[in-house]
Amino acid sequence: MSETHVVVLGGGFAGLGAVQKLKDAPVKITIIDQNNYHTFQPLLYQLATNELSANEVGFPIREMMHRQDNAIFHQAKIMKIDLENKQVHLADMEPVSYDYLVIGLGAVVNYFGTKGAEEHAFPLYTMRDAFALKDHITKLLEKVDKNPALIDDGALTFCVVGGGPTGVETAGALSELLHAVTEEDYPNLPIKEKAEVLLFEAGDVLLKPFKPKLQKYAKKSLEKLGVTVRLDEGVSEIGPTSITLKSGEVVKTHTLIWGAGVQANPLAAALGLEQVRGGRIPVELDLSVNGRSNVFVVGDIAQITDAKTNEVLPQLGSVAQQAGRHVGENIERLVKGKETKPFEYTDKGTMAAIGRGAAVVQLPEHGTMTGHAAWLAWLGVHLTLLAGGEEKSTTMVDWGWNILTKKRGKRIVMTDEDVEAEGNQ
Amino acid sequence: MSETHVVVLGGGFAGLGAVQKLKDAPVKITIIDQNNYHTFQPLLYQLATNELSANEVGFPIREMMHRQDNAIFHQAKIMKIDLENKQVHLADMEPVSYDYLVIGLGAVVNYFGTKGAEEHAFPLYTMRDAFALKDHITKLLEKVDKNPALIDDGALTFCVVGGGPTGVETAGALSELLHAVTEEDYPNLPIKEKAEVLLFEAGDVLLKPFKPKLQKYAKKSLEKLGVTVRLDEGVSEIGPTSITLKSGEVVKTHTLIWGAGVQANPLAAALGLEQVRGGRIPVELDLSVNGRSNVFVVGDIAQITDAKTNEVLPQLGSVAQQAGRHVGENIERLVKGKETKPFEYTDKGTMAAIGRGAAVVQLPEHGTMTGHAAWLAWLGVHLTLLAGGEEKSTTMVDWGWNILTKKRGKRIVMTDEDVEAEGNQ
Repeated sequence: MSETHVVVLGGGFAGLGAVQKLKDAPVKITIIDQNNYHTFQPLLYQLATNELSANEVGFPIREMMHRQDNAIFHQAKIMKIDLENKQVHLADMEPVSYDYLVIGLGAVVNYFGTKGAEEHAFPLYTMRDAFALKDHITKLLEKVDKNPALIDDGALTFCVVGGGPTGVETAGALSELLHAVTEEDYPNLPIKEKAEVLLFEAGDVLLKPFKPKLQKYAKKSLEKLGVTVRLDEGVSEIGPTSITLKSGEVVKTHTLIWGAGVQANPLAAALGLEQVRGGRIPVELDLSVNGRSNVFVVGDIAQITDAKTNEVLPQLGSVAQQAGRHVGENIERLVKGKETKPFEYTDKGTMAAIGRGAAVVQLPEHGTMTGHAAWLAWLGVHLTLLAGGEEKSTTMVDWGWNILTKKRGKRIVMTDEDVEAEGNQ
Repeated sequence: MSETHVVVLGGGFAGLGAVQKLKDAPVKITIIDQNNYHTFQPLLYQLATNELSANEVGFPIREMMHRQDNAIFHQAKIMKIDLENKQVHLADMEPVSYDYLVIGLGAVVNYFGTKGAEEHAFPLYTMRDAFALKDHITKLLEKVDKNPALIDDGALTFCVVGGGPTGVETAGALSELLHAVTEEDYPNLPIKEKAEVLLFEAGDVLLKPFKPKLQKYAKKSLEKLGVTVRLDEGVSEIGPTSITLKSGEVVKTHTLIWGAGVQANPLAAALGLEQVRGGRIPVELDLSVNGRSNVFVVGDIAQITDAKTNEVLPQLGSVAQQAGRHVGENIERLVKGKETKPFEYTDKGTMAAIGRGAAVVQLPEHGTMTGHAAWLAWLGVHLTLLAGGEEKSTTMVDWGWNILTKKRGKRIVMTDEDVEAEGNQ
């Protein structure tokens, strides 16, 4: 008797949720990701702003699989998903056949056609995005240190687009970074007087899904950190040293961070399945795709409708994780000859941190929290969510240290360009 | 009255030693390095073998300068050192004039003309070297995971050249990595049976400057860790999937780590000063260069003769650090109208770790240590040498954790190649 084979594509919250739920199921699992690590996306902005290091935001999937005997991992690029023949084609590797398939390939940045964005904007959805931004900021400061005339060219003006959690958290952390560490690192530069962080949001509020009280608190807290919040304003064009706003105003800046939207992983388009807004694949209430009871789509690549409220769920890590676990459960039910169950999301609250020591938390049933208490809640929830035991303690130590000392992680720049330069010295 | 300006080139042990010694001197100091971090070179092999992370082996020079009000840092590439006009020319920056100059630009790898080395060997003298090796090993293992036929092509054979501390420490750590973490990470691969580490040394002993007793102990300890030690054997040619030994034997391998020698930074050649073996600049007993009492050369770029023994000192971190501090002292003496003093090295012992829990220590006055006690001494000395307080505690925590659990740091692969691949998924 050959064992039932479950193939999970993507090692994000959704894919890992499914794998972990199948721990004791009578199946063989193969999890495939193009990277050899899971990314803890809610903390990417902390990697970019030197608050945490790569080890604290990315976790090796192989290490996670040590705990699970029925799962193996391959780091491979997915070339084609052949739903007809139940096979996944991979680069540099034999195709993998499946009995059940879980597609949790996530989302990529969506610039909505903004001119110059592909070339000049810094998105913040992957580890590499975070590294690229971190390196850019450090290199830019070193450049200004050598040539302070660049300040008048906008080199110390940092722009963030998007008033959602990514934009709000990044703007807050960035302003803190500039006015804590950077001032001390560059005693020769007028960081205090000249460095500024601007946050643009096309709508009339920050953190749209949150309650008005929390939206106002977030805005006030950001302003207290020195961030200039500009509502009802979008960016229409992005250049290397300036951006053009929708209103026509030109802002000199060398740094535009894009936190204004995502679209489904482009692999979604090749599946031949229906796609809706943002390229997402609409799924049945049991998270399978229309007509294929052995194929499940979860996480940011899916459009998931809550079976209880009949509303489309937001693209959140907690939704992905719960949906992934639900798929694991449904596959186990199918393997055991039972019927699948519809997915109901349990809202445990949404939150956003605003710099060090402040946050907004929106609990289900209309509860809210702000300030230090909310921030501690935010900290607790994220520490709990973090996968793995070792990482948890290291991260806690590093965070604790940062909070107490206002020091940041290492501002080490290392790129291929430097490698070339090194050969000459 | 304009202040005396000391320019220090290089943020290694030598340069930082000079800067720190001048902390309370009536001078203005500018320290310049092409990187924005100091590299703790003796632990690079631990970065390459996932024992430590970048934050624990590299330290931001700007952060170190927080403690020192009379010093500023620039990250800049040195284009030309103009001893006649007392100026240093830098890329993207105005030239810097000096009253006193400290040249501590270190060494680079020396392949001694070995065919194919530039293209295929992995040196281990910079952070980037360590990252490149680490990424190569992880990617190679992922490749073998996808295509186990590569094992017969030597993909699990790891070769190290050079029986000095770098080679010995790297071979030991690599063998431990393979037989601890890797076995668990790749349950599908015959790591235990097939993975091997070979260490080649052209001479007839390992750790040549150590006593015979320690040399024998090092060899036995490595063999106990599964390393094949091949003495009296060198490498004459290096290809992508094989190497040719001096004896003519061909060994299939995808990984050759070069720990067999360094030469002075190529900038030394442009100074118009005398150069001796390995491109090093011979210095006076007070560490100044012949005929220029305001120019000092220290560390691996210099050939330093001990004023007490009249012997040329080895290229060691401890020599560089002491010589750097001595130069700081001599500059302060000159500024205060006193004469310089000749440099005498205080040997506090040399040591090498062989995997987890074993080491050899050679103390001055003929003392030696081996085994666990030596390893704890090695640990203590390195923790003490590590610059900075924060790093020290983090490193200690991580080391402690690793020692207890045999777990390694993160095996996360991230390169430009992946960034391209990411665009397609």
